Amino acid sequence: MAAADSDKRLSLIKENLAEVLNEEIIKKILDEGQHPKIYWGTATTGRPHCGYFVPAIKIAQFLAAGCDVTILLADIHGFLDNLKAPLELVMHRAEFYRHIITAMLKAVGVSTEKLRVVLGSSYQKSPEYVMDVYKMASIISEHDAKKAGAEVVKQTDNAPLSGLLYPILQVLDEQYLDCDAQFGGMDQRKLFTAAKEWLPKLGYRERAHLLNPMVPGLHGGKMSSSDPDSKIDLLDAPETVAKKIKKAHAAPQVVEENGLIAFIEFVLLPAARLRGSGEFRVDRERDGLDALVYTDIEKIREDYKNDVLTPQLLKPAVAKELNALLAPIQEAFQASKEWQDIAEKAYPPPPKKEKKVKNKGTRYPGAAKDQTETKEKELPVRSNGEAPN
Amino acid sequence: MAAADSDKRLSLIKENLAEVLNEEIIKKILDEGQHPKIYWGTATTGRPHCGYFVPAIKIAQFLAAGCDVTILLADIHGFLDNLKAPLELVMHRAEFYRHIITAMLKAVGVSTEKLRVVLGSSYQKSPEYVMDVYKMASIISEHDAKKAGAEVVKQTDNAPLSGLLYPILQVLDEQYLDCDAQFGGMDQRKLFTAAKEWLPKLGYRERAHLLNPMVPGLHGGKMSSSDPDSKIDLLDAPETVAKKIKKAHAAPQVVEENGLIAFIEFVLLPAARLRGSGEFRVDRERDGLDALVYTDIEKIREDYKNDVLTPQLLKPAVAKELNALLAPIQEAFQASKEWQDIAEKAYPPPPKKEKKVKNKGTRYPGAAKDQTETKEKELPVRSNGEAPN
Repeated sequence: MAAADSDKRLSLIKENLAEVLNEEIIKKILDEGQHPKIYWGTATTGRPHCGYFVPAIKIAQFLAAGCDVTILLADIHGFLDNLKAPLELVMHRAEFYRHIITAMLKAVGVSTEKLRVVLGSSYQKSPEYVMDVYKMASIISEHDAKKAGAEVVKQTDNAPLSGLLYPILQVLDEQYLDCDAQFGGMDQRKLFTAAKEWLPKLGYRERAHLLNPMVPGLHGGKMSSSDPDSKIDLLDAPETVAKKIKKAHAAPQVVEENGLIAFIEFVLLPAARLRGSGEFRVDRERDGLDALVYTDIEKIREDYKNDVLTPQLLKPAVAKELNALLAPIQEAFQASKEWQDIAEKAYPPPPKKEKKVKNKGTRYPGAAKDQTETKEKELPVRSNGEAPN
Repeated sequence: MAAADSDKRLSLIKENLAEVLNEEIIKKILDEGQHPKIYWGTATTGRPHCGYFVPAIKIAQFLAAGCDVTILLADIHGFLDNLKAPLELVMHRAEFYRHIITAMLKAVGVSTEKLRVVLGSSYQKSPEYVMDVYKMASIISEHDAKKAGAEVVKQTDNAPLSGLLYPILQVLDEQYLDCDAQFGGMDQRKLFTAAKEWLPKLGYRERAHLLNPMVPGLHGGKMSSSDPDSKIDLLDAPETVAKKIKKAHAAPQVVEENGLIAFIEFVLLPAARLRGSGEFRVDRERDGLDALVYTDIEKIREDYKNDVLTPQLLKPAVAKELNALLAPIQEAFQASKEWQDIAEKAYPPPPKKEKKVKNKGTRYPGAAKDQTETKEKELPVRSNGEAPN
């Protein structure tokens, strides 16, 4: 009975993943009836968009499988990625992330009681952590740091040095967030294998790694937590969502790299299962036909290939289900004055053109604060591409 | 009067230096009758040897010229340079450095009242500093970090990443130690010009830089604070010193790259001036001749070229003067039980061969402490080459 339960939990944890490294670490914890601690990190930069549902669904499944989940809001990384943004803005963004991710998880009906949201800045400046950054930097070669970050960090000679530091930070985060496993996209694979190697060098234990496939975005192309390709904002109105999905690229009968089908596979079907029905319904009332009701992706693929399920049928069905998923998030937003205030501060409307600040002399010396305040005006809002089309 | 005083102080500050960058920064402070704040850093690794007199004499001159001097004992760097050494050992070494450097300065008769000795670990792990390390790493390219460290850091692809971090730390130290100028050897030049460029990027002011030439060691070859080529320990007995100097390479009549003459120029003559006499005496009693008494290096060079001053005459004279310089240091050591205890702990005698630790299983997971304790036994004592010949 306990073994059966353990298998069931493991199967939910692994569902839809591309790969699991050191599965035995998780299995052992499950076999003991305990709660694997899983961590996922995201830099707090642009507004989270619908692409964030891909990791969020996995996190919801981890929670549903009785895992303790830690979400790292990497605010320092967010700040460093765009030094023009003042630290205060990044803090507001982190707060916005906290609200919206929690709302996404609640939207698919899982309890967020075992969810912990941690700000990177709460420990990444601590003396112990920093000493470990220094230590790790002394035993990891430039070559290995570069290799570990190859798919997630720009790799030119002129790229900032921080790109070589990030892998070290992300590896140490596993230790400092006290996790049993780190979850991320396949683009993190080299970093994850580095983590397996590097942590024991400081005497820390090796963690398991859960890898999500790279999921094509609703507009085609890959869509990972760090790829803001999907341009549907989580707070977009239903008609905006429908309009955007109508525009999505979806060649008839082609299921490969089809962002809509991928979204059903990695978001809508798992969400439906978490919420109970497990169904994806395609209405055909207009054609005077019964609805198509799917519970597995293979049948959807088959029907799409055979043009039973056409793009014209699929698009409104995806829009409808996505809007159903967004509705509770948007309700939560409407109900929370606090969240609305934070949204305003985190992603302020683009400022009017201001005349140039003339008195540059006051910037130096020691006018770092002044400097960021001045630069705030140059800030490209929604720099990650989530601006409405 | 004030101007004359200012010129005199500046001249003492600049004496024997190879180059000064942004001299106007120092000049302005002197003209205002104030005290320029100068910082010099050294990693606390091997035992300081006689080569340390070269920077120590400059520091003594800075103090004599009414500067506030900060010596950074870079204990974190010392630790990172040799991760096998436990942190505790490095702390003892830093304490040893503090004692011996202070004693060296007292030996040349300057007041150490305006001398401040700071441990790197006292601020290099602080949140503000760390945030600036992260920031600097985000705006400095790998290429520029490499260029800045080109002459002080190993530059292979397999070199540890810390080598690229060190320049950032050293540049930030100027700000965090609140100095007006940094002092170092010519091998630091690229790093110093980087500091001029980088600090203003974070809104901090540009500092002046005081560059000592690369001084050949007593055994020939260059001798800088970071090059432990000179093998005379500061606590070596007078007869040991005499023996080692007797062995020193010194071709007759050749003054170029002559370590003995360089030592007179950069250490013995300036020390004599600080102590009052300003003389370097060469005894010729054995030959029934009067002593040669020098007050400037040019005359010494001339006499050496003409073989009036032979290596056979020069060596005992250098040994005698050096021993005179070492005597008060060794007296201070003998008088301080505390310092003796620290010396024992900082540079313990090589341990006896121990049988291998078998139970490696306990190292993992999380057995970092165990690990360093085990590794301490493998520590190469005096790894920087100060072992007696």
